[in-house]
Amino acid sequence: MEYRRVKDQESYDDLSQKDVESLSGRSLSSVNATGLSSAGGAKGKSNWKLKSVVTLALTLLTSSQAILIVWSKRAGKYEYSVTTANFSVEALKCLLSLAALFRTWNRHGVTDDNRLTTSFDEVSVYPIPAILYMVKNLLQYYIFAYVDAPAYQILKNLNIISTGVLYRIILKKKLSAIQWAAFILLCAGCTTAQLNPSSDHVLQTPIQGWMMAIVMALLSGFAGVYTEAIIKKRPSRNINVQNFWLYIFGVIFNLVAICVQDYDAVMNKGFFHGYSFITVLMILNHALSGIAVSMVMKYADNIVKVYSTSVAMLLTAVVSVFLFNFHLSLAFFLGSTVVSVSVYLHSVGKLQPQK
Amino acid sequence: MEYRRVKDQESYDDLSQKDVESLSGRSLSSVNATGLSSAGGAKGKSNWKLKSVVTLALTLLTSSQAILIVWSKRAGKYEYSVTTANFSVEALKCLLSLAALFRTWNRHGVTDDNRLTTSFDEVSVYPIPAILYMVKNLLQYYIFAYVDAPAYQILKNLNIISTGVLYRIILKKKLSAIQWAAFILLCAGCTTAQLNPSSDHVLQTPIQGWMMAIVMALLSGFAGVYTEAIIKKRPSRNINVQNFWLYIFGVIFNLVAICVQDYDAVMNKGFFHGYSFITVLMILNHALSGIAVSMVMKYADNIVKVYSTSVAMLLTAVVSVFLFNFHLSLAFFLGSTVVSVSVYLHSVGKLQPQK
Repeated sequence: MEYRRVKDQESYDDLSQKDVESLSGRSLSSVNATGLSSAGGAKGKSNWKLKSVVTLALTLLTSSQAILIVWSKRAGKYEYSVTTANFSVEALKCLLSLAALFRTWNRHGVTDDNRLTTSFDEVSVYPIPAILYMVKNLLQYYIFAYVDAPAYQILKNLNIISTGVLYRIILKKKLSAIQWAAFILLCAGCTTAQLNPSSDHVLQTPIQGWMMAIVMALLSGFAGVYTEAIIKKRPSRNINVQNFWLYIFGVIFNLVAICVQDYDAVMNKGFFHGYSFITVLMILNHALSGIAVSMVMKYADNIVKVYSTSVAMLLTAVVSVFLFNFHLSLAFFLGSTVVSVSVYLHSVGKLQPQK
Repeated sequence: MEYRRVKDQESYDDLSQKDVESLSGRSLSSVNATGLSSAGGAKGKSNWKLKSVVTLALTLLTSSQAILIVWSKRAGKYEYSVTTANFSVEALKCLLSLAALFRTWNRHGVTDDNRLTTSFDEVSVYPIPAILYMVKNLLQYYIFAYVDAPAYQILKNLNIISTGVLYRIILKKKLSAIQWAAFILLCAGCTTAQLNPSSDHVLQTPIQGWMMAIVMALLSGFAGVYTEAIIKKRPSRNINVQNFWLYIFGVIFNLVAICVQDYDAVMNKGFFHGYSFITVLMILNHALSGIAVSMVMKYADNIVKVYSTSVAMLLTAVVSVFLFNFHLSLAFFLGSTVVSVSVYLHSVGKLQPQK
């Protein structure tokens, strides 16, 4: 249970006072006019390199994340407060962003694009993904009334489809027919790879469970696509400034969560009570992979993110064979084959760039 | 057990005196020069229609075949001799071919293309597919020393890959990269659809089992591709004449099998002892689907045949839900999705015809 909460640290799973209403049509539609189209064309080769590096980083960080989780599970249960761990992750992300910014200021001086000060207009949309994740996480408590944890793992693959659909609708970016086929295969392949003898009862999920799973997939997909829209709205803006403002709300929300949930434990036993070496490793990993997600949003897109985390899931299983003597199932091999073909089809199925 | 023997009737599972050596390079290489290339281009629209009709027929016949098998299993065990059933199938195919020929002769008169008389050069290759199937069926008895029946069902999907590879190598026909990807997906999808909680032990198959499964897949793929080569070598030759010569060897081989295996039973209880209404239905179905296979080889190809029988496998399962109250597994849905995408990719991934 512990790890799942830590794992959802990206989701800023606490309250915000900001209204969902501020997710206005204006800010979304203007994204396409200004940011997205110019991001791809101008940089060319160096952008492609950057895209590959951040994608690889995200894949490796995500796969080692899951391995740390397995490792930590074998090491026994932790005694730390989950809220303090989430806070630490957000704070570390802020600090790393600031450190990168200081280096930039020293090298290139302070410019309009890399100064930390901002307008209300720019910063007002930043808490919105956090709110979406929060609503999703609240729903998560209720869905377990209808489905159990293994079935929920299977249903989570609906995220892949919802991300693709919302990416198309909201960001108005096109995928070719072959890339859509590849996306369906990615979803089917990931689900196949996770099949186990008890998976079949997911088919007995009541209609309420399906509805909630679909709503959660939409919320999660929407949050991802919205983050991409925010970051790409100002393509020339320094990513570390954007990250700082994205993460500072995580810090604030988690501070509230500590006060509400773990105030006594922190006051009596100290903020870092129960932290072990592996806790620190997990916090470091979560912070770095959080930054990698932002980078992928900036230099690639949500589709790349989905592929990256799916491949990471398979990598984790393969590495676990050596580390933890896991046995791979036939379903895993079949699912991996389908995912591999999907990655191939996604890359060969690219639309010709429109002039 | 009964049904599997009947099911393999296409394989002419008996001995032939013909030497495998006669499978000479000459007859194979000359196919490409004469037959294959002209078959696609000339007819155009009407050929496409014929291709669709025979493919649909094969799909429906194959899927109802499996349903008859399930039906017959529920009706209990049969008391008839399998060899007489196989003989009846081959004889019925011969009769149907002859009947079609008579109609053609009445309408269009006897021409060089539709006369039944033939040269040794033409007919000498016709028993070869039968020999290949025979070797495969002999191996089938030995492979069960290494794998059990459910694992064998899974391993049989290797046929899909071997057919694709031999089709490329022997018939020298090209598939596009996307069509190859689709073919891998077809194999993965079919296997996924057949997964059940005990499928995993196929991974414990010893190396001898794998080798034999691969050899059997190659033999079966080779037989299919060779049949296509024989039929397409003379594209203007009437298909019913080609079928007659193809099936007459099946009649002869099965006559030998009756004498060797069931001579006493037939002599004492009669040729048609133990036949029921469902036996007759199954024989009719096998005969018609045998003819449909030949038609697909003539007007389409082995790739179409593989897709057709794979889709039939899925159709059977869906129909069985209504007929026999079967429960479809999650793996079945995932596998069907992958197979559907594969069919789509195969059709959109067509190579541009070379002039």
